[in-house]
Amino acid sequence: MSDPAIPPAVTEDEAALCTPFVKCLVRLIRAQDSYGSWERKADAELLGDFIITKEQRRAIPIIGDPDPDVLWRLDKYYAAIGLAIEERCGLMASPMIQVSHEGFGRVLFTTGRLVVLSKTLRDVHRFGFETLLKLATAGTKLVDDGIAVIEAFPHVALA
Amino acid sequence: MSDPAIPPAVTEDEAALCTPFVKCLVRLIRAQDSYGSWERKADAELLGDFIITKEQRRAIPIIGDPDPDVLWRLDKYYAAIGLAIEERCGLMASPMIQVSHEGFGRVLFTTGRLVVLSKTLRDVHRFGFETLLKLATAGTKLVDDGIAVIEAFPHVALA
Repeated sequence: MSDPAIPPAVTEDEAALCTPFVKCLVRLIRAQDSYGSWERKADAELLGDFIITKEQRRAIPIIGDPDPDVLWRLDKYYAAIGLAIEERCGLMASPMIQVSHEGFGRVLFTTGRLVVLSKTLRDVHRFGFETLLKLATAGTKLVDDGIAVIEAFPHVALA
Repeated sequence: MSDPAIPPAVTEDEAALCTPFVKCLVRLIRAQDSYGSWERKADAELLGDFIITKEQRRAIPIIGDPDPDVLWRLDKYYAAIGLAIEERCGLMASPMIQVSHEGFGRVLFTTGRLVVLSKTLRDVHRFGFETLLKLATAGTKLVDDGIAVIEAFPHVALA
């Protein structure tokens, strides 16, 4: 640690934490903290359960039922995407998530009469991202996709 | 029964059974009859559980949890609406239903990028119609509404 430069892993995480999408996600998670028990936790720590390394992923059975914790994270992830879309364009994109007990399903974001995002879900019991940056990139991509659809059909989003 | 005219109640039910929406509903229900145990049942009999008279409704508690049978009927009802929309305009309208265990929820029909129908559900545990004709009228209205939206935004429905 004699190197004065910040280790690359830290800068990558920091970059991820600065994205509007991850900020929305952290905000949503902190909003659930009614008793302030997570107040001293850093943002990266709060998002810790969203990170599943390759080794951890390998340890999870291929077929499995999603537990309530992973469904909670899935819910927060998509809620944050909706929130980030609203922040960018001022229109609320409300998600509707349907997951079977086997972890297959669908998520649909609508704004007015417009389907902003539609995504098939599978392997929900293994929902997670290798790094914070991958979480940020995946979420930001969905936000960008949603915004692009709203920009393509603005009159339907307002209908 | 010496009156040669058919009693009005019968003609009303018959009219209801002839609507494209009710025909779709009956078709969907019969498709579930893998063992042919409903083969001898008339259509009106098959739809019997969809009918809740005023007295029956009064007997159901105002607050209650929907049981699997009523959720099954709700599912078939909305699937029939999607099917009838497809029959009329050739575009598939797929429903997505979300019901809380307390019987509140939402149903959303989408075609391409278009939200064809969006409806709030409440009191699902009391889901039912006073007469077959009211069932037919309510379903046909939703089909008409959906078709009107598709006709208003045809390019979004195909997107």
